[in-house]
Amino acid sequence: MLMKKRMYLNAFEMNCVGHQSPGLWTHPNDQSSRYKEANYWIELAQILEKYEYDAVFLADVLGVYDVYGGDDKTSLKEATQVPINDPMFVIPLMAHVTKHLGFGVTASVTHEHPYLFARKMTTLDHLTEGRIGWNIVTSYLASAALNMGKDQPLRHEERYAIAEEFVQVCYKLWEGSWEDGAVVRDRKSRTFTHGERVHPIEHKGKYFEVPGIHLCEPSAQRTPVLFQAGASPSGRSFATKHAEFIFIGAPTIQAAKVFTSRIREETVINGRDPNDVKIITMITPIVAETTEEAQAKYDEYVAHSSYEGALALFGGWTGVDLSSFDPDDEVQYVENDAIRSTLESFTTIDPTRKWTIREIAHSIGIGGMGTATVGTKEEVADELERWMDEADVDGFNLAYALAHDTFEQFGREVIPILKERGRRGKRVEGSFRHQAFGKGDDLPPYHPAKHYYNRIHTVKTN
Amino acid sequence: MLMKKRMYLNAFEMNCVGHQSPGLWTHPNDQSSRYKEANYWIELAQILEKYEYDAVFLADVLGVYDVYGGDDKTSLKEATQVPINDPMFVIPLMAHVTKHLGFGVTASVTHEHPYLFARKMTTLDHLTEGRIGWNIVTSYLASAALNMGKDQPLRHEERYAIAEEFVQVCYKLWEGSWEDGAVVRDRKSRTFTHGERVHPIEHKGKYFEVPGIHLCEPSAQRTPVLFQAGASPSGRSFATKHAEFIFIGAPTIQAAKVFTSRIREETVINGRDPNDVKIITMITPIVAETTEEAQAKYDEYVAHSSYEGALALFGGWTGVDLSSFDPDDEVQYVENDAIRSTLESFTTIDPTRKWTIREIAHSIGIGGMGTATVGTKEEVADELERWMDEADVDGFNLAYALAHDTFEQFGREVIPILKERGRRGKRVEGSFRHQAFGKGDDLPPYHPAKHYYNRIHTVKTN
Repeated sequence: MLMKKRMYLNAFEMNCVGHQSPGLWTHPNDQSSRYKEANYWIELAQILEKYEYDAVFLADVLGVYDVYGGDDKTSLKEATQVPINDPMFVIPLMAHVTKHLGFGVTASVTHEHPYLFARKMTTLDHLTEGRIGWNIVTSYLASAALNMGKDQPLRHEERYAIAEEFVQVCYKLWEGSWEDGAVVRDRKSRTFTHGERVHPIEHKGKYFEVPGIHLCEPSAQRTPVLFQAGASPSGRSFATKHAEFIFIGAPTIQAAKVFTSRIREETVINGRDPNDVKIITMITPIVAETTEEAQAKYDEYVAHSSYEGALALFGGWTGVDLSSFDPDDEVQYVENDAIRSTLESFTTIDPTRKWTIREIAHSIGIGGMGTATVGTKEEVADELERWMDEADVDGFNLAYALAHDTFEQFGREVIPILKERGRRGKRVEGSFRHQAFGKGDDLPPYHPAKHYYNRIHTVKTN
Repeated sequence: MLMKKRMYLNAFEMNCVGHQSPGLWTHPNDQSSRYKEANYWIELAQILEKYEYDAVFLADVLGVYDVYGGDDKTSLKEATQVPINDPMFVIPLMAHVTKHLGFGVTASVTHEHPYLFARKMTTLDHLTEGRIGWNIVTSYLASAALNMGKDQPLRHEERYAIAEEFVQVCYKLWEGSWEDGAVVRDRKSRTFTHGERVHPIEHKGKYFEVPGIHLCEPSAQRTPVLFQAGASPSGRSFATKHAEFIFIGAPTIQAAKVFTSRIREETVINGRDPNDVKIITMITPIVAETTEEAQAKYDEYVAHSSYEGALALFGGWTGVDLSSFDPDDEVQYVENDAIRSTLESFTTIDPTRKWTIREIAHSIGIGGMGTATVGTKEEVADELERWMDEADVDGFNLAYALAHDTFEQFGREVIPILKERGRRGKRVEGSFRHQAFGKGDDLPPYHPAKHYYNRIHTVKTN
């Protein structure tokens, strides 16, 4: 029997209420209203560690969803990703109560300076003992851009040009400033660091100038594990060059297969081993004793979900305001080409069948941009295996319907089945990257970041 | 007998090695080489909480000390505040193992956007349950400015103009966006937030434009406890308008008295109650069984301290490179007016007597910009009382000679004496601000930040 590929399992979270399930905070079993308490995050980390999830991935957004109905009132009432706290500060808390769990955190390259951002990531890699990952985000809401002093979001191409230079600056700081062995902490010779083994990066680019050294000594991974979600061609090109985890969203296995094939191809074209990239899709698991009970549970969740909250999220993601349509309007009858084509290209809406606005809202209402899988624990495990085998994904960003109920139940009931079926492999000790790829803490030598590492480690310096 | 004023005790730290005591990381009892481990900070927090310190104050710097000798090699060898990690991420860890300890953290207004910075502080105020403070910093090293894409640090006046607008934007977000009671978390009516009670701040200034709402719901304190160190006239004017804690540095009680009188006067001129401002000076306590043993301990510390590391710090603080002078040169014989006047105005150098370069290095070597007090536990307590009574300070930023030894010993031996002498008052429960000032979690109504709070709470909105 062929050894099966390990199914990678991320819990998908955000420092807000109801993340991908708008309105479900009203369910009596949901905990996400407690998002601002330290214990909410510590409890989550303990659940994820107990059931051997691989990582928790923290999304973020810097603006408000204010397209639906033309203002932010719906989002505020329904708590659709507003209020939202900074995701980075909960990571040290979660790391401290875990040994294995990896942490992916979203940070935009358009709002921070790489010199300070690099220090943040290194600090977190130190505090987590090598378990930090960075989701490189280039896009943002118009409402965020406005508050950062920009009249409108940057054009797509410019965003990627900035992103490219931003990551290069970070790579130089993380990989090309402090040599291995520069820090000796030698009390006897009174030498903490060999200064001649720490190099200024001398970066002078179009968007950034950073002449100096990195402020931090190297952490276990140096460069955090790199995540990216790249649906557009320039996004995909960026992701297949840099990212170790690539997020996709797809309503069906067939649709996902198209994405994964393209990503695998482009990864090879970019000179990388296709096994160095894990492709992750989003799924919300709804599990019960019987198929019927699972469906009843799903229906109960839909009853708690928010039609308007879902369309507020949809508005933010697509720029399309569906507030004037009737819930029973079918997408193909929407008499506006721009709206129809946006709807049809929206990755969670299966284009092979008709959708009403209400159905769109229900679909987003449970699991947001991802699809929901509903059934017994065996049926859900079957479905995840099918996605791996047929769509060629490496694992899942699991969104919750109810926090922390969804993660607790999936961990208790489904993960053991996946283990029995040989889908979870052997647990590896070590850094986030080593646990995921089994080849040590560092990026592979041919990753673009390693160019800067190689430069200071092979050339003899004074 | 008159009720004595409570002596406020801050532990002064930084996310680096040997903070204010360059070279003392070489002492066998020093722990600060462990600065990058989570447990280093958790142990510190537990010590401070056990002995009832009021707060921990985290300094920060965004560049390297590269004036001494013209490069950063001395600083790297001696680990004088390089490497340095981000201070904010250790706060959630320390907060989680404490109930009372306050947290002051340094953040510069010249490197961050207030829209995102405000979210960070609110997130930390939530996670610490109302125990966050912000040290507002405007200045920075030339080496930091260079790496942020600026040819040189901004002029003093412009720095304060930016700082003024920066804090106004933050005040608007913290105080003037979300009304009390806007967030209801009401499952029954499916209302998380009453949208009509959340207000866009519509800020349009010279440096920032922030039209939108704050991303976070209000935290216990809304505005963090405000710290500032303002030695210059524009610094003092800013501090006496905004700050609740003002840091001073002075070599003698007489010199400190001059600062405190000026600060008290200007606080009143700015329309504030002088009791709303606590003035804090920096001191490093060296305690032993007998006076002689304390002096011997001090000498042992000096032997471990770094002459060159001290002058590297001095170079960064003043811009003056003393590397070409002889250790026995006396300050008044330094044949350079600019250097002499810088030395004479440097607050830790008592101008009433002659200093050699070596003496300056020794003075900075133990406790940096602050003065050291050396003696038995009673003598150290006496000295702290004298500073309070004669210099009119409200308390101390205690720097460590050895981490965590200095804080542990001072807590175990000196704090009980201060308690017995009625200098520590009664411990109050609650937020950082309430513990410090005893008037609740909020800033006083006449503080400039409260203008924005009053605006949305008294005027009837649609």
